Amino acid sequence: MGRPMSRHLLAAGARVVIFSRRPGVVEDLAARGMTPADSPAAVAQEAETVILMVSDTRAVEAVLFGPGGVIEAPLKGRLIIDMGTTGVAATRRFAARIAEAGGEYVDAPVSGGTLGAEAASLTIMAGGGDRALDRARPILSVLGGALTHVGGTGAGQVAKAANQVIVGLNIGAVAEALALARRAGADPARVRQALKGGFADSRVLEVHGERMVSGDFRPGGKAVTQRKDMAQALELAAELGMDLPATRLNMGLYDRLIDAGGGGLDHAALIKVLESEAEVDPDPDRN
Amino acid sequence: MGRPMSRHLLAAGARVVIFSRRPGVVEDLAARGMTPADSPAAVAQEAETVILMVSDTRAVEAVLFGPGGVIEAPLKGRLIIDMGTTGVAATRRFAARIAEAGGEYVDAPVSGGTLGAEAASLTIMAGGGDRALDRARPILSVLGGALTHVGGTGAGQVAKAANQVIVGLNIGAVAEALALARRAGADPARVRQALKGGFADSRVLEVHGERMVSGDFRPGGKAVTQRKDMAQALELAAELGMDLPATRLNMGLYDRLIDAGGGGLDHAALIKVLESEAEVDPDPDRN
Repeated sequence: MGRPMSRHLLAAGARVVIFSRRPGVVEDLAARGMTPADSPAAVAQEAETVILMVSDTRAVEAVLFGPGGVIEAPLKGRLIIDMGTTGVAATRRFAARIAEAGGEYVDAPVSGGTLGAEAASLTIMAGGGDRALDRARPILSVLGGALTHVGGTGAGQVAKAANQVIVGLNIGAVAEALALARRAGADPARVRQALKGGFADSRVLEVHGERMVSGDFRPGGKAVTQRKDMAQALELAAELGMDLPATRLNMGLYDRLIDAGGGGLDHAALIKVLESEAEVDPDPDRN
Repeated sequence: MGRPMSRHLLAAGARVVIFSRRPGVVEDLAARGMTPADSPAAVAQEAETVILMVSDTRAVEAVLFGPGGVIEAPLKGRLIIDMGTTGVAATRRFAARIAEAGGEYVDAPVSGGTLGAEAASLTIMAGGGDRALDRARPILSVLGGALTHVGGTGAGQVAKAANQVIVGLNIGAVAEALALARRAGADPARVRQALKGGFADSRVLEVHGERMVSGDFRPGGKAVTQRKDMAQALELAAELGMDLPATRLNMGLYDRLIDAGGGGLDHAALIKVLESEAEVDPDPDRN
């Protein structure tokens, strides 16, 4: 997702300094007019604002505080924006260490996936102080369609956890409903049609319901990622002494999908677990 | 819901013959120009099309086949339309008995509640033969905004079961997400706002999410009704040899809400179970 996002920033007139752990990405983007850097520290040396878009909490920690990490650059006056899906407690720890080094920190995870990144229509949930948000807003507005300042540091990640809980559970809801309908002899496509506009309507019924009806489970959002996000939400809940019974059950269903070889399929493939574990097809390109 | 529905039919020019088991309803509607009848059989004697809007499967059975029931009238050429939420297997039995007596049967349950009935904007999910549907369509179009012919007899009830499964589970999803957000120190109103337009968006986030944020749990759809609908979907699944694990868990959460005295609250009050069973407030009028 970082690639289309950096292109939007460049097109908006920013000088974009880039680093990626993936081979080829830096060269590709440098050829488009961005400035290559050979470490996160080198990016932070040159850029006033540093944006992270990496896979998980561990990767954020490595980019910020590992060898060659952002922390090795002088951070006074720098603004660090983490746009990945990162743990809440870790986010607060990272922000505190950046603040000690003189920088500001905003957590700004997104919903909308690669399509949203390409279209600059990402939904952005931001956490941080008012001043840091004021600095981040013009940059984030280039990347997303809607930005909500949810609260202080970590609040963006809390909102993202809430988002992922709802997406996973709504997928589970549509999966049970359509699997039941099919087993009861009704056409799932017509049932989905009949439900549109009523209280059962949702983006998940629209997007993932369509995937369940057509049986096309090329990702999209992968089952393994959804499973990771549910685990992260459950970890947060456990830290708060709280049980999320439906989220826990849903993660178990994703485990069954993954165990049956479906981890690389779109998260809508959860319906296969309900219809029959034996039928899970591990090949996402079969359609 | 039968009251506003019968008024729409009258306004559309139909001669409306009415029976109700509730005292006062027949007198009230007769005063508006409808024809009173003293039993379901008397309605079926006079009307070519008989519409049922009663509370559950047992009530449908009593109105059709109990003393003074529809079956006591000559049914040749009559069309019976059941618009309540009725069991699928029972619907197929009822339709077969009506067919033996020479009548036709359509199951046409609705989503949209009393507000949808008042506004004639109900979402109608219909099951039955093509010819019966052709007869029912002009009548149903007076009552609803959208009508989908889902399939043969019982398919409307299958779609309604799917609808209720999704509504209950989506409420559970928003409840876990917003309870988590609040416990993690974020403002649930801002989190709900941040999620709008993304993959987590739904009618339930819009309507029931707003109730959870404001804490106004005056019904709306009652928790006891949602619990009954989940039980009915699980019964259908069991008949088909199928497990719906999230639906089963969700019904258990509604049981806890009801046990704590919240059965008369809106089904959005499920969030109280997650926040703390002790805090469940049985008074739906406290706001």
